Amino acid sequence: MTVLVVGSIAFDSVETPFGAVDAALGGSAIYFSYAASSFAPVQLVGVVGKDFPLASLDDLKKRGVDLQGLEVVEGKTFRWKGKYEGDMGVAQTLDTQLNVFGDFAPKIPKAFRSTPFVFLANGAPATQMTVLSQVEAPKFVVCDTMNLWMRIAKPQLLELLKKVDGLILNDEEARELAGERNLIRAGRALVKLGPRIVIVKKGEHGSFLFSEFFQFALPAYPTDDVKDPTGAGDSFAGGFMGYLASQGRVTLWGVKKAMAYGTICASVCVEDFSLANMKRTTRAQIDQRFEEFVQFTSY
Amino acid sequence: MTVLVVGSIAFDSVETPFGAVDAALGGSAIYFSYAASSFAPVQLVGVVGKDFPLASLDDLKKRGVDLQGLEVVEGKTFRWKGKYEGDMGVAQTLDTQLNVFGDFAPKIPKAFRSTPFVFLANGAPATQMTVLSQVEAPKFVVCDTMNLWMRIAKPQLLELLKKVDGLILNDEEARELAGERNLIRAGRALVKLGPRIVIVKKGEHGSFLFSEFFQFALPAYPTDDVKDPTGAGDSFAGGFMGYLASQGRVTLWGVKKAMAYGTICASVCVEDFSLANMKRTTRAQIDQRFEEFVQFTSY
Repeated sequence: MTVLVVGSIAFDSVETPFGAVDAALGGSAIYFSYAASSFAPVQLVGVVGKDFPLASLDDLKKRGVDLQGLEVVEGKTFRWKGKYEGDMGVAQTLDTQLNVFGDFAPKIPKAFRSTPFVFLANGAPATQMTVLSQVEAPKFVVCDTMNLWMRIAKPQLLELLKKVDGLILNDEEARELAGERNLIRAGRALVKLGPRIVIVKKGEHGSFLFSEFFQFALPAYPTDDVKDPTGAGDSFAGGFMGYLASQGRVTLWGVKKAMAYGTICASVCVEDFSLANMKRTTRAQIDQRFEEFVQFTSY
Repeated sequence: MTVLVVGSIAFDSVETPFGAVDAALGGSAIYFSYAASSFAPVQLVGVVGKDFPLASLDDLKKRGVDLQGLEVVEGKTFRWKGKYEGDMGVAQTLDTQLNVFGDFAPKIPKAFRSTPFVFLANGAPATQMTVLSQVEAPKFVVCDTMNLWMRIAKPQLLELLKKVDGLILNDEEARELAGERNLIRAGRALVKLGPRIVIVKKGEHGSFLFSEFFQFALPAYPTDDVKDPTGAGDSFAGGFMGYLASQGRVTLWGVKKAMAYGTICASVCVEDFSLANMKRTTRAQIDQRFEEFVQFTSY
């Protein structure tokens, strides 16, 4: 089955202890699409400015990503500049230019409206809600969010959480949204806000899954070669949603396996700058890494 | 088979956001013994001062801990005072009085010298080495250590590491000893120093196992009720070594399962102050928690 992603398309300038890239292709919808397209057909909705080199998306087309939801408008494409230091756990944002993404009002093409799997990448909850109002009876909707929206758009975020099946966020965001330091209690509290499942990403420390009926945890894949963490979270979401879409249904064991695939996609993402390693990694290599991960985590 | 532990016996005064205890029973050998004695017969070697109420060890005797290696000497028992704040990841030491533990020269009773499983709790590497020189052909020796010894007794520590089968330490200690920020690379580097296995404890983020031939990772047990983290690491070691001793041999799958039992014992430990929860938790409850943990981690 297909999976729809609505999110950002960006030029990222990133510096880490292992190198730097300038104005490289990035954005949540892009990272998600690379990861998800290893598993299922992807439909992308996003916006770029007139400065965007459309040829840079040819590779995504080849991967089976349907770009009819891409809008090209007057103005400049979203730009982000960041830096990672030390153990590279947290990005230090040096500059954000929302540009055309600031006024993004996603229009879901007719052909996309009946898609069963939907991922609302990080964005204003009101904007995420307008996407939901345009899709028809989706099977499984997951949203991402960030601290900013908890602070400036909490009512809308809480409203959105009642309408989605899943929420993906990182550990600090989970603590803030739940108002609870203990991450286990925080995760359980978030499930009470509406989503059937809540996934808490902890970077190099792996991820947690909370639901009313079960909990689940995975370590990160043990990569010894983290070059650039940018996009890891969206690659995780892409592997997660892509795998579920490939199965066509959402079961307990499917969700667990999807988290493992998300973990693998995140590990592939961080091993090189921008999308370099995502581009050269095949589905067979992802599956091989998945098998190694099973060995790494089973007892 | 039996497991021998040589370590500290202490009076701990601890304050956390959830309460406080004053001069409660503690120390590495005590926490280890409570955990390990759920699985196998334990032999304890340690020292206390004349101020120590020996009746407080009656419970350990009932659990099958052989105390003939306990020395009572002139002077005061080791005292430690600490505080945990925020998410309680790291203890803030307020006061340390080594007292009789400062001059501890462990004498291994004859009856203990042929014990197959040996745990050298945190202490001066030279002291740990004197224990090794007193035991006869142990099957499996594991040592703990800390940053202090890396700084003031590095040559002795490196010498010790060539003689043990396993090393258990926390993530910051692993990074420091390996001189490497990336924890995966750090763990692999430590295996090259001699131990067949290196276990890196990451507190609420679980643990890693490194060896020349395989790697393994576990999340922490998802407790939502951490009251006092004191002793978690030694309880982990106790569950780990106790389970291996109960099996009588060391296999790849046994080591993995032992890490899971270590994880469970650590979670039991932190759910109340001092040894309160260890004392009231039965082997059946540990096994039940183990089964929940299998659900929590399998996919």
